[in-house]
Amino acid sequence: MEFTVNQIAAMLGGEVSGNGNEKINMLAKIQDAKQGQIAFLSNPKYEQYIYTTQATAVIVKKDFVPKKEVVSTLILVEDPYISFTRLLEEYHKLISFQKSGVEQPSFMSESATIGKDFYRGAFSYIGNNVKIGDGVKIYPHAYVGDNVVIGNHCILHSGVKIYADTKIGNHCVIHSGCVIGSDGFGFAPQEDGSYKTIPQLGTVIIEDHVAIGANTVIDCATLFGDATIVHQGVKLDNLIQVAHNVEIGKNTVIAAQAGVSGSTKIGENCIIGGQVGIAGHLVIANHTGLGAQAGISKSIKEEGQKLMGSPAYDYGEYYKSYAVFKKLPDFQHRLRELEDKVKKSENTSLSVD
Amino acid sequence: MEFTVNQIAAMLGGEVSGNGNEKINMLAKIQDAKQGQIAFLSNPKYEQYIYTTQATAVIVKKDFVPKKEVVSTLILVEDPYISFTRLLEEYHKLISFQKSGVEQPSFMSESATIGKDFYRGAFSYIGNNVKIGDGVKIYPHAYVGDNVVIGNHCILHSGVKIYADTKIGNHCVIHSGCVIGSDGFGFAPQEDGSYKTIPQLGTVIIEDHVAIGANTVIDCATLFGDATIVHQGVKLDNLIQVAHNVEIGKNTVIAAQAGVSGSTKIGENCIIGGQVGIAGHLVIANHTGLGAQAGISKSIKEEGQKLMGSPAYDYGEYYKSYAVFKKLPDFQHRLRELEDKVKKSENTSLSVD
Amino acid sequence: MEFTVNQIAAMLGGEVSGNGNEKINMLAKIQDAKQGQIAFLSNPKYEQYIYTTQATAVIVKKDFVPKKEVVSTLILVEDPYISFTRLLEEYHKLISFQKSGVEQPSFMSESATIGKDFYRGAFSYIGNNVKIGDGVKIYPHAYVGDNVVIGNHCILHSGVKIYADTKIGNHCVIHSGCVIGSDGFGFAPQEDGSYKTIPQLGTVIIEDHVAIGANTVIDCATLFGDATIVHQGVKLDNLIQVAHNVEIGKNTVIAAQAGVSGSTKIGENCIIGGQVGIAGHLVIANHTGLGAQAGISKSIKEEGQKLMGSPAYDYGEYYKSYAVFKKLPDFQHRLRELEDKVKKSENTSLSVD
Repeated sequence: MEFTVNQIAAMLGGEVSGNGNEKINMLAKIQDAKQGQIAFLSNPKYEQYIYTTQATAVIVKKDFVPKKEVVSTLILVEDPYISFTRLLEEYHKLISFQKSGVEQPSFMSESATIGKDFYRGAFSYIGNNVKIGDGVKIYPHAYVGDNVVIGNHCILHSGVKIYADTKIGNHCVIHSGCVIGSDGFGFAPQEDGSYKTIPQLGTVIIEDHVAIGANTVIDCATLFGDATIVHQGVKLDNLIQVAHNVEIGKNTVIAAQAGVSGSTKIGENCIIGGQVGIAGHLVIANHTGLGAQAGISKSIKEEGQKLMGSPAYDYGEYYKSYAVFKKLPDFQHRLRELEDKVKKSENTSLSVD
Repeated sequence: MEFTVNQIAAMLGGEVSGNGNEKINMLAKIQDAKQGQIAFLSNPKYEQYIYTTQATAVIVKKDFVPKKEVVSTLILVEDPYISFTRLLEEYHKLISFQKSGVEQPSFMSESATIGKDFYRGAFSYIGNNVKIGDGVKIYPHAYVGDNVVIGNHCILHSGVKIYADTKIGNHCVIHSGCVIGSDGFGFAPQEDGSYKTIPQLGTVIIEDHVAIGANTVIDCATLFGDATIVHQGVKLDNLIQVAHNVEIGKNTVIAAQAGVSGSTKIGENCIIGGQVGIAGHLVIANHTGLGAQAGISKSIKEEGQKLMGSPAYDYGEYYKSYAVFKKLPDFQHRLRELEDKVKKSENTSLSVD
Repeated sequence: MEFTVNQIAAMLGGEVSGNGNEKINMLAKIQDAKQGQIAFLSNPKYEQYIYTTQATAVIVKKDFVPKKEVVSTLILVEDPYISFTRLLEEYHKLISFQKSGVEQPSFMSESATIGKDFYRGAFSYIGNNVKIGDGVKIYPHAYVGDNVVIGNHCILHSGVKIYADTKIGNHCVIHSGCVIGSDGFGFAPQEDGSYKTIPQLGTVIIEDHVAIGANTVIDCATLFGDATIVHQGVKLDNLIQVAHNVEIGKNTVIAAQAGVSGSTKIGENCIIGGQVGIAGHLVIANHTGLGAQAGISKSIKEEGQKLMGSPAYDYGEYYKSYAVFKKLPDFQHRLRELEDKVKKSENTSLSVD
């Protein structure tokens, strides 16, 4: 992957000052950049580096006037930071989706169908009747069970496990060790104290633009025709538990190690902190914010609340109570003192009477 | 997989009303069912659907009298819900255990022995001296280390990792990404502040009818001849941590993301909530119930208790205290007010004297 | 693997009493030991077993005088417990590093380079430009992405996933299902409520003598040239979350299911309990101790503190407050009683006036 400074400038709509034919193969910070790399200067604090950097090119603000000689070729743009971020995004896309072709040995059922620009890593497994769209990258050791449907431009990183019948939309990124479609935790207690397995026959539906972190688990729904649903734009961090029949609303974000129990419906645009636990069969309103380690035991009906504690309630109220909690030993002392005084005054009164 | 209505009726001990030769290949809810599917009607609320459903067959109570014409073939039974559940179970068993044969490439040591009706998925690995019983299904990417013993009718889902020397009983289901037999977390502090690894040389024993969720980890015991033991009928959810030398009693159920520290012995028929943490070297009595996110720092000796909080104590007491916790800022205010009043009255008394 | 008693005695610097040519192939406890095994006697409580054990050899203190006949060959040493521990360590090392050679099929890019005494399990994957040192053991289903560098004497257990560009030092042990280098959780909120992915372009650096438990996840840093760093001697238990740009200081130990949020720097020689959650962008001083389930929301500047609670503060203070928390319903009662009394006394005073 290599571009000329001119090509990059054209992409950014910027103007070149210097040799536009030089080759760029990497991005870097201005203070670390080496030959063949491109950096940016946005914060004036870093201006000193532009006079010493070995970067082949530097993106600068279009009104930048050097105070000394600059060796690097300059690309002049409106906003160097935004331009550099655009480059990073493009680079990331290139890197993420650069794999292609088929590494052997890999396993694909004859009944599976795949789209264009497909990458299938060594030891990847694609089961019967699987349907996969265009531009999908299946890394080594990924497992795609029978009848799974995957849309376009998805990445399944190494070791992802997708159980049979799962449906995944477009532009989803699923990280290593993530398990989708495992059996929900359903067991019926028997008279002798043992448990009987309740068959888990539903599926999982992952909509478009969903990101799922490493080693996160999403269980399938219990009943036929039902699905655990992760709606469009949801972002799940690592090591999260999503139980059977859960529904996670559009654009909701959940931090690492949180857990959502069975049949709970989480609204849209919620922000859920790390290690939060949500009980089963609840409804969480849109735009709910849950502080890290909160424990949710009741449905949250009003939108836009911020909660904290276990069981959780209003964030601000929790912190006020917690501030007093820290003083409880002092309270105990003061309460005893008051009791003594009041008792003494009662006795005094009595003796006075 | 296809059965006639007559075959299904015979299995359920029911009577057929209509064409018993029709073919059934799927189960469904009465409101969603299509041709070739079988549904049930138990709750009278749903009776309307029996007159419009496209289900090929419907299981109904034997005294059911239709108010309008019913197109579907009927199977008349004592209890339609129980009958349908039985069908679900049979179906689930068929689905779960339907895989058979060997997919290539897979790896099996010549010294390994396997039973009948074995499934070995592509890229599965079976090490030296492994012994596997009848009807075992080893999905793709599962790893079975040297000397492992597995009983009959077990399922190891895709990507399960079983370290060397582990013993697994009969009728166990182990979900994707589960790790069994990894090193216990044992390190001896040295004078220079570093740690020396304490070799973990024990094993793990999983008894019969144990279910283990996705990405759960069970460490091996520390000493030779010792084992971390998961007793018969235990059900473990996803992402659970079971440390070295732990013992989990018969029919105990543990919800997702709970963790049990080293050498703790959990009794029988306990119900342990999600994200519970249990410290090491404790004994937890039979029939203990632990609320979600509870933290257990002491042994629980009396059977049948329900605990909550961190550190946990009686469930009801915890909630009473927590109710007051929420009012602590108000308490603070009232305490100050009392102090003021008492001080004032003291001053008054003094001035009176 | 088989040694004579003489060979073992030589290794331990001990003296043999009995037949030194007998063969030993296993270690065991004195009460369980069988022929071909070696045990030890340290605690006098266990002396009875030395007269009945079937162990081929027993390690005893050099001044041990049997009261009855002993059949086993004896190895006389200064400290039998320490000697046995040394044997365990040697045995563990032998076992852990005994695998060698290449099992097929496995995948290694032609551009990868490897050292001596290498083990590459079936279905392991080694990407482009990977550099691996001497004595490294890559178990089945391990994935080593492009450009990864691994030092000497490391073990990657079955199913470990190392993303591209990660650097791992010497003498590291990484357990099954561990994921290193997955994308950090970075998403920029957009005006329409959706999120845009912030490319995660940094790497992970794991220094020497680091142990990482099963299914633990370590995310890569966000920016080019930055790294999430796990310093020398760190020990991480299972199912831990380490977010992007985190730094974990030398010899710090973290128990299972703890989570460290983005950009937090943890000092050296800290001991962090299970299920602890640490917020992002904090600095944790050296020698900090965090109790299980603690929630850390502020930086900890003073070294050597022990904290507890969520949000966490001084361990002892927390427990004092928690002791009062349990009595809060009683407090409520006492507070009301006081209020009544004071009110009554006010009224009395008033009526007196």
